[in-house]
Amino acid sequence: MYAVGVDIGGTKIAAGVVDEDGRIVAKLRRKTDASDSASVEHGVVEVCRELAADHEIGAIGLAAPGYVGADQATVLFTPNLPWRDHPLRANVQRQLGSLADGVRIVVENDANAAGWAEFRFGAGRGVRDMLLLTIGTGLGGAIVIDGRLLRGWAGVAAEVGHMRVVPDGHACGCGHDGCWEQYASGRALVREAKAALVNDPDRATRLLELAGGDPNHLKGPQVTKAAREGDPLALELLTTLGRWIGEGAASVAAIVDPALVVIGGGVADAGELLLKPAREGFENQLSARGHRPVAEIAVASLGNEAGIVGAADLARTV
Amino acid sequence: MYAVGVDIGGTKIAAGVVDEDGRIVAKLRRKTDASDSASVEHGVVEVCRELAADHEIGAIGLAAPGYVGADQATVLFTPNLPWRDHPLRANVQRQLGSLADGVRIVVENDANAAGWAEFRFGAGRGVRDMLLLTIGTGLGGAIVIDGRLLRGWAGVAAEVGHMRVVPDGHACGCGHDGCWEQYASGRALVREAKAALVNDPDRATRLLELAGGDPNHLKGPQVTKAAREGDPLALELLTTLGRWIGEGAASVAAIVDPALVVIGGGVADAGELLLKPAREGFENQLSARGHRPVAEIAVASLGNEAGIVGAADLARTV
Amino acid sequence: MYAVGVDIGGTKIAAGVVDEDGRIVAKLRRKTDASDSASVEHGVVEVCRELAADHEIGAIGLAAPGYVGADQATVLFTPNLPWRDHPLRANVQRQLGSLADGVRIVVENDANAAGWAEFRFGAGRGVRDMLLLTIGTGLGGAIVIDGRLLRGWAGVAAEVGHMRVVPDGHACGCGHDGCWEQYASGRALVREAKAALVNDPDRATRLLELAGGDPNHLKGPQVTKAAREGDPLALELLTTLGRWIGEGAASVAAIVDPALVVIGGGVADAGELLLKPAREGFENQLSARGHRPVAEIAVASLGNEAGIVGAADLARTV
Amino acid sequence: MYAVGVDIGGTKIAAGVVDEDGRIVAKLRRKTDASDSASVEHGVVEVCRELAADHEIGAIGLAAPGYVGADQATVLFTPNLPWRDHPLRANVQRQLGSLADGVRIVVENDANAAGWAEFRFGAGRGVRDMLLLTIGTGLGGAIVIDGRLLRGWAGVAAEVGHMRVVPDGHACGCGHDGCWEQYASGRALVREAKAALVNDPDRATRLLELAGGDPNHLKGPQVTKAAREGDPLALELLTTLGRWIGEGAASVAAIVDPALVVIGGGVADAGELLLKPAREGFENQLSARGHRPVAEIAVASLGNEAGIVGAADLARTV
Repeated sequence: MYAVGVDIGGTKIAAGVVDEDGRIVAKLRRKTDASDSASVEHGVVEVCRELAADHEIGAIGLAAPGYVGADQATVLFTPNLPWRDHPLRANVQRQLGSLADGVRIVVENDANAAGWAEFRFGAGRGVRDMLLLTIGTGLGGAIVIDGRLLRGWAGVAAEVGHMRVVPDGHACGCGHDGCWEQYASGRALVREAKAALVNDPDRATRLLELAGGDPNHLKGPQVTKAAREGDPLALELLTTLGRWIGEGAASVAAIVDPALVVIGGGVADAGELLLKPAREGFENQLSARGHRPVAEIAVASLGNEAGIVGAADLARTV
Repeated sequence: MYAVGVDIGGTKIAAGVVDEDGRIVAKLRRKTDASDSASVEHGVVEVCRELAADHEIGAIGLAAPGYVGADQATVLFTPNLPWRDHPLRANVQRQLGSLADGVRIVVENDANAAGWAEFRFGAGRGVRDMLLLTIGTGLGGAIVIDGRLLRGWAGVAAEVGHMRVVPDGHACGCGHDGCWEQYASGRALVREAKAALVNDPDRATRLLELAGGDPNHLKGPQVTKAAREGDPLALELLTTLGRWIGEGAASVAAIVDPALVVIGGGVADAGELLLKPAREGFENQLSARGHRPVAEIAVASLGNEAGIVGAADLARTV
Repeated sequence: MYAVGVDIGGTKIAAGVVDEDGRIVAKLRRKTDASDSASVEHGVVEVCRELAADHEIGAIGLAAPGYVGADQATVLFTPNLPWRDHPLRANVQRQLGSLADGVRIVVENDANAAGWAEFRFGAGRGVRDMLLLTIGTGLGGAIVIDGRLLRGWAGVAAEVGHMRVVPDGHACGCGHDGCWEQYASGRALVREAKAALVNDPDRATRLLELAGGDPNHLKGPQVTKAAREGDPLALELLTTLGRWIGEGAASVAAIVDPALVVIGGGVADAGELLLKPAREGFENQLSARGHRPVAEIAVASLGNEAGIVGAADLARTV
Repeated sequence: MYAVGVDIGGTKIAAGVVDEDGRIVAKLRRKTDASDSASVEHGVVEVCRELAADHEIGAIGLAAPGYVGADQATVLFTPNLPWRDHPLRANVQRQLGSLADGVRIVVENDANAAGWAEFRFGAGRGVRDMLLLTIGTGLGGAIVIDGRLLRGWAGVAAEVGHMRVVPDGHACGCGHDGCWEQYASGRALVREAKAALVNDPDRATRLLELAGGDPNHLKGPQVTKAAREGDPLALELLTTLGRWIGEGAASVAAIVDPALVVIGGGVADAGELLLKPAREGFENQLSARGHRPVAEIAVASLGNEAGIVGAADLARTV
């Protein structure tokens, strides 16, 4: 059975028709206006219609960038869209009209969708207990326990980015201080890189050059590029980032004990430059190390399409 | 069907015959020598024999104070007993001889056993997603997700006490720094109380009196007693402890999203003096507060027998 | 002998003629354009000329908002003006022409100037060892040791706001993390108040009202106003701020051991609402408490004019 | 003029006759019983008598291991001797009888004495503003400002080891948490090394060997020895220690702005293995780096005799 997966972002929608082996057989993209809730919903409905025109669809999975309720229907809260207790499933269902007849529609958190895709078809194939970290600008997560997605009581489990790792630490957009996201994310990497431009100008010449001479233009991929070239400061920045990823993952592991930690998102492009310190940080902080097996840490394999694939599969199978 | 639950501690074994409603119908205690592994096992076998003499037993659950493998048979590591990769189930089974025929024997972590008991028959009845914190000298945990005990890949999930809450924080017996256990446990309460005797002697007169004039004799229950009398310093100490419990629980909630946090162990005797600040700390740190339901925090209801009841029930039913 | 004191701010210059008892006998203000270094200097020269027209001047003290070199002539760095290794004294001297003949001109850090004024004529009269904390948007400091202003080897002593109090803590404008300024300043107060509007909306109604309904308009004095009315959240925010002030001051006291800590700047308007928790935080953290006298903590008495008075006096007497 | 310097330790007294160039012309040692205050004092008197028998003495400086009052006569508190508000000068003077006639006797903190010696005759010659760190089991300090020893209002300045560097950090013997001493001392080095034996046994084989196979026997000098041999774990441990030394020194530098940081005490034996990371930590954390000169960090040059030399010189000259 085909299912549609829709990955709803702040500025664009990506959607695809996904078969039972996790393959995308058709794909669409659409720009949206994040400030206009109706336009976003309208975009979702349109891509579904368009994809359903050419394929027989049995289920639709909507991956939303925020907190999704336990009903798998309501978006409780999104930082980047004006949705609060928003009945996304009902709205989409209504607008789809007869097209929705007999079609199972579910709403999922986008990181959960991506994590599920990696578990079913990607880096997590073959394990039963997995932690996905999606490290882009922010830090999202998904947890699979004994082959089942962990949603939690209220639907908001696996918000790993908001585990506090430093009391009175860096201010987080969520209103709290010291959230893991502020230490293990692209935003953290850029913040520390910009600080180095101030504090360590002699060693930051390559970074400044890659930023076109303007510290404000520095972006995460430039740090990765410099690190690949061997730039010592950039390597140090990735090492620090990796260490925070690994050390935080050790705290999550103390709670859910996964067999595998999969690292996805744009930051994962740094590959071993990031994974090596992440593994070191993880092992150094792992409770009862030496008396337990140590989880592996690997890079995600499905790239940006994980959200589409996972949302579709969750709608179909779970 | 009756099951035996055996709660193996550092210095004693407590065991009981438990019926399907979680009632203990017979009970035994035995002192042990923690340094002598064989004597501990021998004690386990003896109490099982003795209880089986008067009751027909279908299952035996052994609650061990340490890391238990995913096989529910091996003790990977215990801080207080000399067990490392120790085949507890096989040893007990062999010594029980024919008595073990047809009897399911499982080994469980003791906090897991206690948490399961609270979930099935105690403070957690009626919820599906629960976090138990056992706060005695140390801090143990158990997690129930959608009605199932979370054991993890290697069997060592829910070791919440070793989530790091303060980088470079208090040294933990586990060899790491800043583990939650060093902030949310009886040991933490006593450490801070002793520090107050040094730093704040004018306000510590009642505590010193309860300790018989000797700071080294100060114990957690004395702090609770002073707090109940209204002693301002003792109240402050419990408030600080409660805050750490609640704030840490908010981090765990960011990961597993429970409906209920149950607080057991000796420290829970402080009741509302502890729960009030724990609730405040929890709510203050809860991610997306205001956009999600807030888990309840309650005291455990089964007391010291939770380990026996939970071990027996897990052996029988899971 | 009269001396002129000039307090150079980011957006304005305040200047006065100061007599030997620290009294301002004439006063001027001038707006400036912080982005235009020449205009700022021109303003300084103008106010000096104008004040010198009516009074015989023996010395000129220039209080600059930044790092001043040990030569008391060069501004090494200012965050809010484009001065880097800037020869402020030489420039002003040259532009003053013959007016500068026989007139001692010195450049001082503005917090140092304010601290000196409090020491000589304000809250610090009668003590020999004093710490001034100027708590406005940021956190500045001045230290007097045995009756002498502490300038340090390079002229940049008493930059207390950049003592690190939380490793990996809040990002500071200086490029580092966890500086005391990020916990003990008006900026910290407003940051925490805004976070409370997000995390604790039920208790934040009065603060939101004072901010005219817009969280972005919330200012420190509104928090102080609400606290004076008895608003529990505002009181809590000031208590937290006061605690950080006191605890940080205890660390400074471990190093310089002052008899008195004077708290000035706009935040000091909160008076005892701030000083009480500051004293508690200070005493709780004070090393060897009980075996040493405890420094007093008092509010500054000279208000905004301290910079003028101190700069003038330093130019004349030191 | 000759002066006697007496360095009073927990278990022994070392004393010497010191000339005006800081040379020790005669020297004595005596074991003491730290639990017996009278015996310690008696030992002090005896060594003074003995040294005075062969040399004409103009002054006596007593370096005490604790807090010394501003009167330079009273020991306010010592952790290792039973002295509380103890009139050490008066007692010694009385017992010396006529020998004390015309002899100036002063009591100084032992780290202050050592710092003064380094300033006058050792690594600090030629600078006016200096920070000494004495890093043995604990962390002591001395500060020289513009050529004068900083004693502070109550006599207890330069207790740098009790500046708080990690809120809720490692428990300190002083009753507080997170004191710098718990991160930058021999005790910290050994604590972390022992933790590595637990957490990182594969890399800790050389350390365990040097400890004779017993983790409890591990000592700081063994870590230094392993590091000199190139052992990666030991090098890492010294790097971490050095980083904490440097980062804390940057906080002290934000307050007193020294030209030179001198590192003495047993830990300084590690030399560049420690100084390199200390310099890096210092520069990384230095406020306004790039806009100010950077203090040097050097090893102390007078060794264990600094206390004797400094106490004698302070008694004679200050």
